[in-house]
Order: sequence, then C-alpha cells, then structure tokens
Amino acid sequence: MVPFGRHEESLVEMLGQAGLRALDDGLDDDRPVDAVYVGNMAAGLFNHQSAVASALVDYLGLLPAAADAVENGPASGGSALKNGVLAVASGCYERVLVVGGEKMKHLPGPRVTDNLATMAHPAVEYPYGATLPALAGMFARLYMEQYGVTPAHLAQVAVKNHANGALNPYAHLRTPVTLEDILTGPQAAKNNPFVAAPLRLYDCCPTSDGAAAVLLGSADGVMHAQSPTVIVAGTGQAMDTHSLQERATPTDLLAVRLAAQKAFAMAGLTPGEVDVAELHDAFTVLEIAESEEIGFFDRGEGARALEQGRTRIGGDLPISPSGGLKARGHPPGATGVAQVVELVWQLRGEAGTRQVKDARVGFSVNLGGLANNVVAFVLRAE
Amino acid sequence: MVPFGRHEESLVEMLGQAGLRALDDGLDDDRPVDAVYVGNMAAGLFNHQSAVASALVDYLGLLPAAADAVENGPASGGSALKNGVLAVASGCYERVLVVGGEKMKHLPGPRVTDNLATMAHPAVEYPYGATLPALAGMFARLYMEQYGVTPAHLAQVAVKNHANGALNPYAHLRTPVTLEDILTGPQAAKNNPFVAAPLRLYDCCPTSDGAAAVLLGSADGVMHAQSPTVIVAGTGQAMDTHSLQERATPTDLLAVRLAAQKAFAMAGLTPGEVDVAELHDAFTVLEIAESEEIGFFDRGEGARALEQGRTRIGGDLPISPSGGLKARGHPPGATGVAQVVELVWQLRGEAGTRQVKDARVGFSVNLGGLANNVVAFVLRAE
Repeated sequence: MVPFGRHEESLVEMLGQAGLRALDDGLDDDRPVDAVYVGNMAAGLFNHQSAVASALVDYLGLLPAAADAVENGPASGGSALKNGVLAVASGCYERVLVVGGEKMKHLPGPRVTDNLATMAHPAVEYPYGATLPALAGMFARLYMEQYGVTPAHLAQVAVKNHANGALNPYAHLRTPVTLEDILTGPQAAKNNPFVAAPLRLYDCCPTSDGAAAVLLGSADGVMHAQSPTVIVAGTGQAMDTHSLQERATPTDLLAVRLAAQKAFAMAGLTPGEVDVAELHDAFTVLEIAESEEIGFFDRGEGARALEQGRTRIGGDLPISPSGGLKARGHPPGATGVAQVVELVWQLRGEAGTRQVKDARVGFSVNLGGLANNVVAFVLRAE
Repeated sequence: MVPFGRHEESLVEMLGQAGLRALDDGLDDDRPVDAVYVGNMAAGLFNHQSAVASALVDYLGLLPAAADAVENGPASGGSALKNGVLAVASGCYERVLVVGGEKMKHLPGPRVTDNLATMAHPAVEYPYGATLPALAGMFARLYMEQYGVTPAHLAQVAVKNHANGALNPYAHLRTPVTLEDILTGPQAAKNNPFVAAPLRLYDCCPTSDGAAAVLLGSADGVMHAQSPTVIVAGTGQAMDTHSLQERATPTDLLAVRLAAQKAFAMAGLTPGEVDVAELHDAFTVLEIAESEEIGFFDRGEGARALEQGRTRIGGDLPISPSGGLKARGHPPGATGVAQVVELVWQLRGEAGTRQVKDARVGFSVNLGGLANNVVAFVLRAE
C-alpha cells in the first residue's frame, strides 16, 4: 500500500503505486495477471473520472487483463477483494490483482461529507441531510444508553488506535493521544469538539487519500511468491436495511453478524480462534459494537474488554494494530484492502513494532453505509 | 427489462422494475437470491448517488443478499454480468441477480457528453476535450479510408437497426428511417447533421435512460425457472490501450478480438456457429468493424456483408435484431445486460416480429471506452 494521508499524484498514479508494490511483493515469474479489480467508491464525484480500472491496467502495463471497478460505498475495497477471490475460485482467472483507493482530500470538507452522504438512503436519508456522522451519532447515543457505554469508552478506542497508528508507517495520523488530551484535561473540549453528538472529533476517522493492493492466486501452486503466501480461508458479505431507521433494533449490526458468520463458516474457524482483527472504526463506537456482533465478546461486553486492555497489541485479541480507520485513515475504496494488507503483514510476522505475537488467524470486517452492506474475511498463515 | 427512453422514476426504481421482471420470469420457488450485481457507469455524476446496489437490494426486499455495483464505462452491464457468472461458477452463490441501468436523460446534453467523456484517458484524452463522439469520428475516418467504407455503408447500419428497433417494444427509437431520409434525400443534410465528421446524427446512439436484468443460477438443477433457461456457454473480457492514439493500428479493435476469442474458446464454439448477435453500435462504424474482429466476416468484408443484407433479420447472421444501441438506446450501465436479454428472448423463440428463425447460439459484445475494455458472451439454447 501507499501511506495514507494527502497525495498530490492522481488517483490512477496512487492506485498504480500500490499495485506495483503488490506485484513486486508477489510475482516471481512472468506469467500474466489475468484480471484487475479496483475498489473505489466515488471517482466520479471526487475526481470527475470513470473507467478507473481500465486506466489502471493501462498504467501498470498489464494489458490485455480484464479490468472492473467495484463499488460498495466504504466497503468498496472489501467488495473488490471478495469478487477477486470469487473470480479465482471460479477457475476463470489464475492471478488477480485487487487495488482499492480513493482520492478526496483535495476537496473542501463539506463537499467530501456531502459526496460520502450519497451512500445514505436516496429517499429517506440523504434528502433530509443525514450525513454519515449524523447517522453514526444517533446510533452511538442509542447504543451507549442501551449498554452503559460512556464517552470514556469511546475515547479509549481513539487512544488505543492512535497508539497503534503511531507504530505504522502507512498510517495517516501517527500522533499518540491520551485520555487527558481528548476527554479529561483542560484543553480536551477545545482539542476534541463535537462533530455529531455524542461523537467528537476523535471519535471520527479523518479524511484521507490512499491506496492498497493485494495479489490473489489459486492455491494449487499458481502463486510462487517471493514472500510467504497467506490463505484467504473465508469471506462473507451480507446486507441490512439500507436506512438505519427501518431496523427493528437499530443498535444491532445484523449485517456484521451475518457476514462474519459466513466468513467463519467458509473458513471452518470460530471467532475464538482469531489472533488479530482489523475492524471498521469509521466511528469509535462501531469498533465496540462490531467486536460483539462478530462474536469476539458477549453483547454489552465489548467496552469492558477494551477497558481491560484485551484489544491492545499485547492483549488476548488485538483489534486494529494498524491504527484502524481512526488513525491509519479511511479512503473508502482503499480501506477493505488495507485491512487485509495489515493482516497479511501480521500473519507473515512482518509488522515490525506493532507485530501481534504468534498471529496465525486474522479477521477483517469492512462496512458499507452505516453497516448496511458488510464484507468480512478470515485469513490464515500457511 | 424496462423500455429504454426517458424515465421519470428514480434510478433505483428503474433498476427495481427491471429486477422484478427478471425475478418474476425466473423464480418459481422461495429460495433466496444470494447476491445482486448492478452494472452502472456513473450514478455519482448523473444522479449524485452511490451505494446503488445496496439501495436496490433493499428496494427489492432481497436482504440479506450481497450487493455490489460494477463499473466498466459503457461495458458496466457486461462486466456486472461477467462477475455474476464467475460468482455462480465459484460455487459461492447459487442464485445471482444482475441488473444494469443508467439514468441520465434529465441532464442537459453537454453535461451528459462531458460525464461520458470521463471514461477517456485521464491524462492524454479527457483534458484535451476528447469526447467519445470525437474519438469515434477519428476512428471512423481512418477505418473508412483503410477499408473503402463509405458514408452510405454507415447509413445502412442505421437504416437496418432502426428497422429492427421499430419491431422492439423495448427500443427507445421506434421510427424506421430510409437512406433517402438520412443520406440522399433533399432533407437529408437537415435531418442528419454532422456530430463529429464523418459521423452524423444517425451514426450515433441516442441518450437513453433504461435498465435490464438477468437472473443467473448454476446449471446443476438450481434454476427451476418457469421460462426455458439459456446457457451462458462462454464469456471473455480483454483490454486494449486506454487511449486510442497509443494503438499500433488504431483501426484494429484488439480487445474485441481477444474478448470474443476467449468467449468462443470457453464455449467450445466458433463465430460460424452463431445464429444471432448483439453488437455494440454506439457509433455505426463500430458494428461493421466489430463484425470483422469477432470473426463473422473477413477483414474489410463487414461493409459488404451489410450491403448484401446478410446482417438483417432474415439474413444468414442477423446483427442486433433488438435495434442495437442505435435504436434500442444506450444507457451505459444497461446495455451489456440488455444485449443478453435480447439474446435470451431470441434463443427462447420469444422475440415476436423480430424473431431470428431457429436461433440456437447467440453472441454479444459490449465495449467499454472506445473498445479499450470489452466483454463478450456466447449463449446457447438448452
């Protein structure tokens, strides 16, 4: 991947750099890449561009590879990767490159927020001004009331993920923060204003440019990679109602639960066997809620596990050692791929100072919309 | 599918109507649809909307089906369908709904042309004002010079496809035209002005809204459709350089040739065995050039075959009995799916007054960009 943050190069150049790194890491012969999948949410809105996948294949010199872009809001990366996996599994392609990316930091904040809000329900959310932070704020208030989760719990997600991000050279935000900085100290209110109550600035991921890439191949000897390969053991995707308000219990993340179940079932593994996880903390509250829906912790126990340090690097289930969306950053099309890139590094033992010890099984979950379309992966070391 | 033309309903409603028709046609039990693929080129630019696939699954009540949108310019429909086919072939999904659609007719013409031009090369075409008609015009001039193709040949494509479209209740343009109307008559210059010389109005597809849908299932008994099933015997996708100017021989449609070869190889069939074809005549000259690259006719012989009436309904290889992009219309995300819908009707013998006699094998080709990313299908009757 390329470091997340602000990129001056074009979207295609940024995707190309990530793609080249994956090819350089994974290829050791001259057999062709058969297809390229691009995860991208909104190049039309952000970059006034379409046919990004075609442009990328041309840029990378991979002609005549097939090229498609896949869009599923902020899970566009996860969906691109899932379709790359299915394409290899179909037997139609032997080698598939998946590149996720988004370039949006050049636009003014309100335009970014509005463009991202186009993923909300087109009839009952977007026209009424429901942005993603607004929807997440409502979710957070209800969830916090229901499960006794406090602003301090949310802030602890930020503190943990900023600490992790500080160890990750690919993270957008590499500055550790303390509870005092963002919650209890004299400057906390100034440092950490409300974005959409009860969510404050440090409860929300930043706006980032970035790209990440993975090279996929069939297991039966097609990949002769220079670096150790990692197995895609399972993948699952599931939907919930497009609008938050239609859910019977809006604090349930049903699509997270179903996507995780499908991925674990395909892998023949259980949540208890996961050594390291990358969750989708576009808003801090989501990391806590997801950790319960996936089955890592009992319902209502996610905040307690966090408090106890179980989800830190060094805990029994480190969550988002990369820094997560909160600190690594969240270019929508890139995130789902970047999560899997981090898991690959962790399962290979290449994660440097943020390495999770003896990591053999990894899990990621990537949320489209406010968890209306979710993609999960289970990976394991060879 | 829904009739192409102007639609007042929203993009998702239009996709939903096409989807419901496919479900109504194909389902006879209550087993779920596992995944939905949406072919859409530019909902962000045309409709200020993203996450269209999620919105559609919710609209159709198909939760918790997986949902992804696939983009490949004007071959977005073909790419969505290809990925649906691979997803079924992977064994991951048993039933997959593919819906392609685009809604753009509400925008002023220059904005439509500009939005479509975003598929051109982002560095060496789009910034210099190269629209798709402009690129196609340059292609046409070179191709006509090289192979002795005349304006009358191009006009004959329009006359044939308008005649076919007049028989198709789903076509946008249902008015037959004559060579006198658009080429030789006293009103011809007025009726048929230049768009991008040598291409005139009747050499270019109209701007259309529309949607089309196909229900896919695995062959081993999963589909128990009310209507006869049609076999997806082969599919192929291939790329050429993203910009037209980089091609060694710009009049070669290399990606068309490769995509067709792949599709025929997978099907174990040859171009000579095709009974009916749907080609991508966004510009009339393309139908002639494609008919040669696919292998239907020798190089330089496509115009002669057209002249001889071989590609009319009733000829030995009817091309685009639907009316093609020229008369049925060309909503980019819908076209690749609509081509296959027409082939399904033809292979089932359900095409009414435009039925091709004894059609057993069908072929379609869908072009992204100016043939830089091409998807082909070979279908056969059961």
